[in-house]
Amino acid sequence: MKSETNRLEKTKNNRTLCPMFDLKTYMTERADWINQALDRTLPPPMEHPTGLHEAMRYSLFIGGKRIRPILCMAAAEAVGGTAEAALPIGAALECLHTYSLIHDDLPAMDDDDLRRGQPTLHKVYGEANAILAGDSLLTLAFEILAQQPQGAQLSLELAQAAGSRGLAGGQFEDLAEERQAQNREHLMRIHANKTGKLIRAACRMGGISANATATQLEALGRYGEAIGLAFQIADDILNVTSTQEVLGKSVGSDARREKITYVACIGIEAAQAEARELVKQAITALNALPGDTEPLQALAHYVVDRLM
Amino acid sequence: MKSETNRLEKTKNNRTLCPMFDLKTYMTERADWINQALDRTLPPPMEHPTGLHEAMRYSLFIGGKRIRPILCMAAAEAVGGTAEAALPIGAALECLHTYSLIHDDLPAMDDDDLRRGQPTLHKVYGEANAILAGDSLLTLAFEILAQQPQGAQLSLELAQAAGSRGLAGGQFEDLAEERQAQNREHLMRIHANKTGKLIRAACRMGGISANATATQLEALGRYGEAIGLAFQIADDILNVTSTQEVLGKSVGSDARREKITYVACIGIEAAQAEARELVKQAITALNALPGDTEPLQALAHYVVDRLM
Repeated sequence: MKSETNRLEKTKNNRTLCPMFDLKTYMTERADWINQALDRTLPPPMEHPTGLHEAMRYSLFIGGKRIRPILCMAAAEAVGGTAEAALPIGAALECLHTYSLIHDDLPAMDDDDLRRGQPTLHKVYGEANAILAGDSLLTLAFEILAQQPQGAQLSLELAQAAGSRGLAGGQFEDLAEERQAQNREHLMRIHANKTGKLIRAACRMGGISANATATQLEALGRYGEAIGLAFQIADDILNVTSTQEVLGKSVGSDARREKITYVACIGIEAAQAEARELVKQAITALNALPGDTEPLQALAHYVVDRLM
Repeated sequence: MKSETNRLEKTKNNRTLCPMFDLKTYMTERADWINQALDRTLPPPMEHPTGLHEAMRYSLFIGGKRIRPILCMAAAEAVGGTAEAALPIGAALECLHTYSLIHDDLPAMDDDDLRRGQPTLHKVYGEANAILAGDSLLTLAFEILAQQPQGAQLSLELAQAAGSRGLAGGQFEDLAEERQAQNREHLMRIHANKTGKLIRAACRMGGISANATATQLEALGRYGEAIGLAFQIADDILNVTSTQEVLGKSVGSDARREKITYVACIGIEAAQAEARELVKQAITALNALPGDTEPLQALAHYVVDRLM
């Protein structure tokens, strides 16, 4: 991690010599930190009950770009903090995100057989174990946060983003709304709850780890909200334009389930334009922050550019 | 709540005039406080998404003696604290306990149709909603704790009791052990994880709310561990001796599933003797505590006497 800090300092000091921010290297490096942190934090696979600990690791290490943890660390640095202090918080965010994927994939929910190109957890370990592995990862997220210096504040932020008024509520509505009228406001609320609030929380929690002011947290929250929505719009677009190989799951599955999507509501072109506008808003929100905001800017573009 | 405090003080001052502790009134009164606290804390049933919030309330308010919250408040008072400060922590404990019942009852898990004499949540609201209502209650427990003065310490205590090394791990093993050899050590570990750790945490968390010393927390933990195990042994006994009307679920269901139980391992009489011995140990652990330990003593007896 030290070499990364040095690199960043160098980048800051020699910005004119290094005008292009290398997001790909940045993301690979940080995803690697997160993977190491998760490996250190999770109970060892040989620890009792082994089947449960193996199941938790299966879903965590099956892949994933670690976007939420990377945003969390970048947000800490954007207000003058360190990625090191935000790293365990990033691990907690990834545990929570993975729990939500495991439960969403269950037969009683979205009933998905593939995730990131691999069989979903319940396909490999059975439904009961998938439910319990999800429960355990959700609980572990709070166990990790409780051990951070700002434990209570971080827990509150995550719980509010993840509960019935956030992620779980969004998934509830997403299931309930299937085969219902295509209504854009409904759709925006579902997306905000199901995806946006956790991404917003990831950014704010990074700020909290760096003792950000209330104004700075608010700016990070606005950034997170905008890219969270952009991210979901991008996902909707991907679901109709990508190939199964790239996507790691069935293409067109949203349409087959008659799920309401941005693409279905306003068409691909308008959806792309809206995603780009949200990226602009996100970057504007970063203006007032005192630290290095270059990674957050690059990440905002990445959210949309990965597919256009 | 004020009248209760007065009553307790009176009880303390006039102990010779009031030698018999009225546990029944005490439990009814405190269960009522908890029900009111839960009603205030949970999102209103009319708040969006209404179906999810109704489902959360269905399981929480279907019944239940609120033993964990009552233990938590009594533990606070046993070290000189107040039931008032421990009340929200009790509400969090009940949310967590209810989540575990909802998920345990799911078709993929224990597949129970009845709980407390009523249809289980998934029978009424469907499986997906039961999974999400459980997830939401688990998350809400941590949201409540994060807002308490000792938020981080309380969260850590609960997460350690509830995760893969506690309740969720115990349920995993309980499912895996069905139809396996009757092994008493296995059984004790499953019980300790599935039931004991949360009851232990309930007692310790009450102590934490009252700023108990490490020694006092340790004593409360030993008390909780002992009555937790006694409680589970008592449940095993109830499962073979009670009637469906009293139990609120099918009698003999453990034997039919070939679940390992204390009764199957050592017989009813030895199980009863072991439960009584644990109650003695629990009460001994209370000796060093500075506050009113009478309710905890009465609760320890209650755990076993409710069935013998």
